[in-house]
Amino acid sequence: MPQFLSTTDPGFEAAFRAFLARKREVDEDVDAAVADIIADVRARGDRALIDLTARFDRVTLTSHTLRVPDAEIDALAARVPEAERKALTLAAERIRAYHDRQMPDDALWEDEAGVTLGWRWRPVAAAGLYVPGGTAAYPSSVLMNAIPAKVAGVGRLVVTVPAPGGVLNPLVMLACRIAGVDEIWRIGGAQAIAALAYGTESLAPVDVITGPGNAWVAAAKRRVFGHVGIDMIAGPSEILVIADRHNEPGWVALDLLSQAEHDPTAQAILLTDDPAFGRAVAATVELKLPGLPRRDIAAAAWRDFGAVIVTRSLGEAAQLADRIAPEHLELLVAEPEALAARISHAGAMFLGPWTPEAIGDYVAGPNHVLPTARTARFSSGLSVMPFLKRTTVTRLTPDAMARLGPAAEHLARAERLDAHGLSVRARLDALNLDAPA
Amino acid sequence: MPQFLSTTDPGFEAAFRAFLARKREVDEDVDAAVADIIADVRARGDRALIDLTARFDRVTLTSHTLRVPDAEIDALAARVPEAERKALTLAAERIRAYHDRQMPDDALWEDEAGVTLGWRWRPVAAAGLYVPGGTAAYPSSVLMNAIPAKVAGVGRLVVTVPAPGGVLNPLVMLACRIAGVDEIWRIGGAQAIAALAYGTESLAPVDVITGPGNAWVAAAKRRVFGHVGIDMIAGPSEILVIADRHNEPGWVALDLLSQAEHDPTAQAILLTDDPAFGRAVAATVELKLPGLPRRDIAAAAWRDFGAVIVTRSLGEAAQLADRIAPEHLELLVAEPEALAARISHAGAMFLGPWTPEAIGDYVAGPNHVLPTARTARFSSGLSVMPFLKRTTVTRLTPDAMARLGPAAEHLARAERLDAHGLSVRARLDALNLDAPA
Repeated sequence: MPQFLSTTDPGFEAAFRAFLARKREVDEDVDAAVADIIADVRARGDRALIDLTARFDRVTLTSHTLRVPDAEIDALAARVPEAERKALTLAAERIRAYHDRQMPDDALWEDEAGVTLGWRWRPVAAAGLYVPGGTAAYPSSVLMNAIPAKVAGVGRLVVTVPAPGGVLNPLVMLACRIAGVDEIWRIGGAQAIAALAYGTESLAPVDVITGPGNAWVAAAKRRVFGHVGIDMIAGPSEILVIADRHNEPGWVALDLLSQAEHDPTAQAILLTDDPAFGRAVAATVELKLPGLPRRDIAAAAWRDFGAVIVTRSLGEAAQLADRIAPEHLELLVAEPEALAARISHAGAMFLGPWTPEAIGDYVAGPNHVLPTARTARFSSGLSVMPFLKRTTVTRLTPDAMARLGPAAEHLARAERLDAHGLSVRARLDALNLDAPA
Repeated sequence: MPQFLSTTDPGFEAAFRAFLARKREVDEDVDAAVADIIADVRARGDRALIDLTARFDRVTLTSHTLRVPDAEIDALAARVPEAERKALTLAAERIRAYHDRQMPDDALWEDEAGVTLGWRWRPVAAAGLYVPGGTAAYPSSVLMNAIPAKVAGVGRLVVTVPAPGGVLNPLVMLACRIAGVDEIWRIGGAQAIAALAYGTESLAPVDVITGPGNAWVAAAKRRVFGHVGIDMIAGPSEILVIADRHNEPGWVALDLLSQAEHDPTAQAILLTDDPAFGRAVAATVELKLPGLPRRDIAAAAWRDFGAVIVTRSLGEAAQLADRIAPEHLELLVAEPEALAARISHAGAMFLGPWTPEAIGDYVAGPNHVLPTARTARFSSGLSVMPFLKRTTVTRLTPDAMARLGPAAEHLARAERLDAHGLSVRARLDALNLDAPA
């Protein structure tokens, strides 16, 4: 059974704080091993990739088979049944349309001092996308990472995906094709991240690395952060549902379970202003659990990290939601827009009973790579932005220099950076403007 | 003497690669000590801050004097002479005007499938700005960090600044006042970063931490990254000047020196298509060095990391600039806009001879916190964005569910996430839509 709390309980604040502070991630101490793997790939390049892949994925590769040839990709992709192909194509179109709208504009203007100012956005030259292998190889994640990169204009998009036992997932290959991935390499783990960040003889390095992965991949992403850009280190998935009594308990129970089934450390929380409704949803979860293929995972997540919290009002639920700062937030209330306006911190919001979060995982269009573990307080889901960077632009005329130069000279002096001041002074002298007293 | 290279040298490519790969940062191994400090502040709160400040800054504080009272801030700020006050005010106005234009728009639309989609931007609730103490306490940096936070709408902006020997810089206090900083705490080092990230009894935690600092501060920012947002870990400053022969060598020499004087590991590079002009600039640098108060720093930087590279053409210079991906790029050529269009990777561009980089450090308006060490390949200068986060919004009507639900159900099945599929199926059943075969 999950935790049951009510904001009218005398000990609620302490219990809620303890609930918020609860650690869901297991610290696997792989950092030293990951450092060794990165050093090995930097030192021995392809040879290290081949050795590490033989050890971890039980696949024997050569410099020529590290990369998956186009013909192999196409042959695998061709095996995907028509219904899945159509669904994936629809998803890709919708994701592309949504992310197209995120593209920021360049700007250039002249201000009242005669200074031309602005900025320009340019894509990174190359991006790498880590795709987990085995059962966690989700084609939807390929689309969610690859399409924003391509919309941003990234010229070279590289996928690494481990092929344990030599097996590649046809749906993942098709998703790469649909999204416009340029290269696919059958490598995984920290060695793949190292190869993407530093390059090898055959794999040219990239500038940004995104995509989910296990503890080894996360530790490697942390280590290469700064040398290349990374998106985020995502934690276990979460859903917060705020629902009033007018909902179908079965729908809410399934929405909670759709996150719980991801991982034993996933978190599903219901906030409701009606205790009877809260009990009905919890009872329905128990009823539906045995029928799920992933029942053991979902039951563990629901038992260990799930919660039903009864609030005095929906407004109070909104306040708690901001303290939770959930990855996914469903607002199953009569006026979801009004409630949404009262909540600042959430990765993605799903409004009304006809918008289960699973729609957002696949076909709605917004990205499903979202901030977890309360990081929605300060960070955003994946978008075109990590694949773009801004260059600011400034141009002064002699007249603008005459107007702004003296202030710059004063501040340079105050900061005791004389060459800064002199570089301005040289221009002011040419304009016959006196130095300040 | 700095390095002299010419692209026509037979060994140029190897020499240029070695130059690019050269490490300028010293790895100070403070990580273990920083981990201890963070643990101490988390465990002992104010008491740890008081003890560590006594040890590192030789100042005895109490829980009541950790924070600088408003009266003390105002008294210090009042000491700033009128000319500096005016210059700082002008700088603040221009920085505010520039960053105002960066504010991203919210969006909400209904697409052809009847899905309401969009996103909302909200500021983080609280931000912390680290300001170094002593001579490195630059009021311009306070403006460059604090103003974007306030433009973004951050409600609570906290400055930490060490006061070695008890001394606070009046210009820094004035800059805080002008920028609208809400709290100032006289703490520094890793202990200040820990207090900002985790809070103490008297200092409430923040969501995002920005600002420059020494190796201890950088290591602490790395360690709290993920628990809070951070802007970047900045390295030593850099300037790349592309100049043709029609420039005044003295101006170019001073522009190069204005970066070299920052730090012995700063980097100043000149690319020119005219070898005689390159020699003239280098000679002028030597001539001007002895007159600078910071001559030892500037001379070391110029000698150890400076370079003059002669290219066959300005186009070739643009190609090299992209490989360098400089923090600051001056284009001192007849048609700087045309050359700028050929360069993708730079933190900030300064166009034409009347735009020395020092103008951008103080009063131009764009941010002077910029990506160093080739990270302009994938990252941008400071802006309002690190102080904002995006929440995506989705709302389906029953009709939109009927149109999108089946594809989501297919993909959930393909990924073997049954509860995902069932949460969609529950809605489709209510619409009397059959399950797929």
